Amino acid sequence: MPYFDAASSAPLHPVARQALLAALDEGWADPARLYREGRRARLLLDAAREAAAEAVGCRPDELTFTPSGTRALHDGIAGALAGRRRAGRHLVVSAVEHSAVLHAAAAHRAGGGTVAEVPVDGAGRVAPGAYAAALRDAPGPTALACLQSANHEVGTRQPVAEAAQECRAADVPLLVDAAQSLAWGAVAGDWSLLTASAHKWGGPPGVGLLAVRKGVRFAAHGPADERESGRAPGFENIPAVVAAAASLRAVREEAAAEAERLRELVDRIRTRVPRLIPDVEVVGDPERRLPHLVTFSCLYVDGETLLHELDRAGFSVSSGSSCTSSTLTPSHVLRAMGVLSEGNVRVSLPLGTREEDVERFLALLPDLVSRVRGQLGAPRPEEAAAAGSGVAGPAGPAGGGEEAELVVDSLGKLCPIPVIELAKVIGEVPVGGLVTVLADDEAARLDIPAWCAMRGHEYVGERPAERGTAYRVRRRA
Amino acid sequence: MPYFDAASSAPLHPVARQALLAALDEGWADPARLYREGRRARLLLDAAREAAAEAVGCRPDELTFTPSGTRALHDGIAGALAGRRRAGRHLVVSAVEHSAVLHAAAAHRAGGGTVAEVPVDGAGRVAPGAYAAALRDAPGPTALACLQSANHEVGTRQPVAEAAQECRAADVPLLVDAAQSLAWGAVAGDWSLLTASAHKWGGPPGVGLLAVRKGVRFAAHGPADERESGRAPGFENIPAVVAAAASLRAVREEAAAEAERLRELVDRIRTRVPRLIPDVEVVGDPERRLPHLVTFSCLYVDGETLLHELDRAGFSVSSGSSCTSSTLTPSHVLRAMGVLSEGNVRVSLPLGTREEDVERFLALLPDLVSRVRGQLGAPRPEEAAAAGSGVAGPAGPAGGGEEAELVVDSLGKLCPIPVIELAKVIGEVPVGGLVTVLADDEAARLDIPAWCAMRGHEYVGERPAERGTAYRVRRRA
Repeated sequence: MPYFDAASSAPLHPVARQALLAALDEGWADPARLYREGRRARLLLDAAREAAAEAVGCRPDELTFTPSGTRALHDGIAGALAGRRRAGRHLVVSAVEHSAVLHAAAAHRAGGGTVAEVPVDGAGRVAPGAYAAALRDAPGPTALACLQSANHEVGTRQPVAEAAQECRAADVPLLVDAAQSLAWGAVAGDWSLLTASAHKWGGPPGVGLLAVRKGVRFAAHGPADERESGRAPGFENIPAVVAAAASLRAVREEAAAEAERLRELVDRIRTRVPRLIPDVEVVGDPERRLPHLVTFSCLYVDGETLLHELDRAGFSVSSGSSCTSSTLTPSHVLRAMGVLSEGNVRVSLPLGTREEDVERFLALLPDLVSRVRGQLGAPRPEEAAAAGSGVAGPAGPAGGGEEAELVVDSLGKLCPIPVIELAKVIGEVPVGGLVTVLADDEAARLDIPAWCAMRGHEYVGERPAERGTAYRVRRRA
Repeated sequence: MPYFDAASSAPLHPVARQALLAALDEGWADPARLYREGRRARLLLDAAREAAAEAVGCRPDELTFTPSGTRALHDGIAGALAGRRRAGRHLVVSAVEHSAVLHAAAAHRAGGGTVAEVPVDGAGRVAPGAYAAALRDAPGPTALACLQSANHEVGTRQPVAEAAQECRAADVPLLVDAAQSLAWGAVAGDWSLLTASAHKWGGPPGVGLLAVRKGVRFAAHGPADERESGRAPGFENIPAVVAAAASLRAVREEAAAEAERLRELVDRIRTRVPRLIPDVEVVGDPERRLPHLVTFSCLYVDGETLLHELDRAGFSVSSGSSCTSSTLTPSHVLRAMGVLSEGNVRVSLPLGTREEDVERFLALLPDLVSRVRGQLGAPRPEEAAAAGSGVAGPAGPAGGGEEAELVVDSLGKLCPIPVIELAKVIGEVPVGGLVTVLADDEAARLDIPAWCAMRGHEYVGERPAERGTAYRVRRRA
């Protein structure tokens, strides 16, 4: 049963399992104690720290083990902000950071700080110079900037080294969230803080990394604790830490070969999915990307239903569609990129993924997508293509009589229905005519403009309606 | 090699090991995901929560898994204080809580809140009515009260049910730190919040428990996170959580029988150590106590040296002596009890401790203590007894000429030297005469009065000296 969601959590690496078992016997005691069991635990902890620091590219005394990547981010951001509080209270993050960063930013804002989000392009990538610009345009002195090494949803690698240089020039520390990329190599560039999460590389859950370069101001927040340089309170989870460090070293040994192999498998998906399935958009940077991750969105598809169909067929993948989120909003990453969110599928291949499983995925997917589209009554590709010589429908209430306008009431209907209904009627107005879609589903805000771009129509804009929002589209093709 | 420091960390229980291994294979995926690996992880997490909640005596939806007992305390206290912020900003804790509670209290104070410490008696126990009194005398409305179920250093059980009733009467939630007692049974009484730590009962490190009763106001602090009811951010550590719950159930099954057996072994230590070794004080409540834990202090003994000697002899124990702490201060528990801290030894027996190991400990200890005392030039018991008909020594500078007074300069000397020097000269002043000890070691503040109580002399008091502190003792025997 192929598991294609390594970016959420990777299965435990055999080396992690072996190291964990050994360390459970040797490393359960308190490393602060002076007796033999304590000294043994301390030795294991020190060795794990050295190994992990080497993989990160920092000094062992710069590296702290935290209980998770999320805690590393929360505590790292809070500590860096507190350490630089006298310098300023402004925080700069990219718009596509992990939600843990955005939640930390929201907490900072709630506490009276200010936050700026650096935008990304349609591939999800921060532009060179964007951090320099954000620091220049900041409302006050910037305490900290954050940038992921690579995006967790679309795989796009960020220009970390450039951003670090821009931050350095402005004397602002840069925190790099390396959760998705650390397995593939150390993060280059002159970063100040770095975080990661062991279960993303096949280590056990319960271990995050927080590196804070010497000289970076850092003030741990919250109650004092002597453990982990005062940066991560609580009894050390030595067995898991040992397993995390051992597996990081192990995956690094495989990294070059696996990166090449998985990149080729991902290229097959990137190339063939749009050929095999009509109306699919592959998103994310095609070159500057993680080797194992690809994301695409399928027009007229309900993401949750597609995930269920894939699960029934034995494939575990993830989605940024609104219907798969507890808040019923599309992923903030897809929103920031301004790309289609409906029928979104993220494939992230774990180490050792077999070629035949990828081939089977490619063989199955077209039928599954087609079945989901059929259930939703989506326009068939030939229909969509044929619709082109339609005449103006009845003028809707918003029409001033000047131009033909059709109103589609999709209120109360969830993604992808508003887009399907739009696609079905666009042929009914003449080229140059307007269609207004009334919708209250959040995904429409992203997917109607994305559909227009894919179909060559003009997205006129949105305005508040009596209920929901009115999205206006001008037929151009 | 007998390990007698279960109160620091217990070796992994075989059931925990087995459950951890199984859950590593079944529970590594993200329980928030809808595919089969995610659903399987969710099932494991739910089952673990039910089992742990049953052992705690709460509803599963009241129980959150945290990354450690320390984090459960830090986050539990912060959340309860934030949830009750409108009610008041006063916090009540006992003077002998775990340092994680006292550090959380210090953070609360640093943030503008107020804190009161409820004192304990010489056995380390809070008096009935003490919480009611603390709430009555509070400088403002109390947001939260905290009380441990049993003390981690001396094993004394606290009157939790009574304190909970007193808090309930004042409409103040009580948080119970059950870290040391949860293995032995659920905490009785009408508590509002409860915390615990899995590695104390033989579970793996990386798991704490935080129970918050329905209806208790709670506002998670820090950045938002959807996991664990928003109370414990970060990817769930399901393998460890499963192992923690399984081992808690397993130790509970052994609890009654093991409690009886270990209580008898601990009674041997309590009874025989003071018989075998002169000048030893067993501390903590003799009856209302944890079954597996006993603490005693040895006059004229350097705690760190004794621990090393015991370690060389194969016994791993812990100590609250100042010389074993990074801050060179005696444990705050011993200080709050006002008992001797020098030569302090805590023995906490893990489940399954063998009788012969306890017997061997009892057989070895007298020689080890005697050797350490010899190295320090401590007065031999007969000397200490013989010294009694001495004459007044030369009057020291502090002597006003009215009474015989001897000054001992112990400045720069660490525990137990100041007490040894005092013991050596007490016979040189007449009964009724004064000895002043000049010392700058923190332990002297605790150990000189404790020595006076043990020896029947009068502790007159302390006053600042040109360097360090002058402790005055009147010879009475």
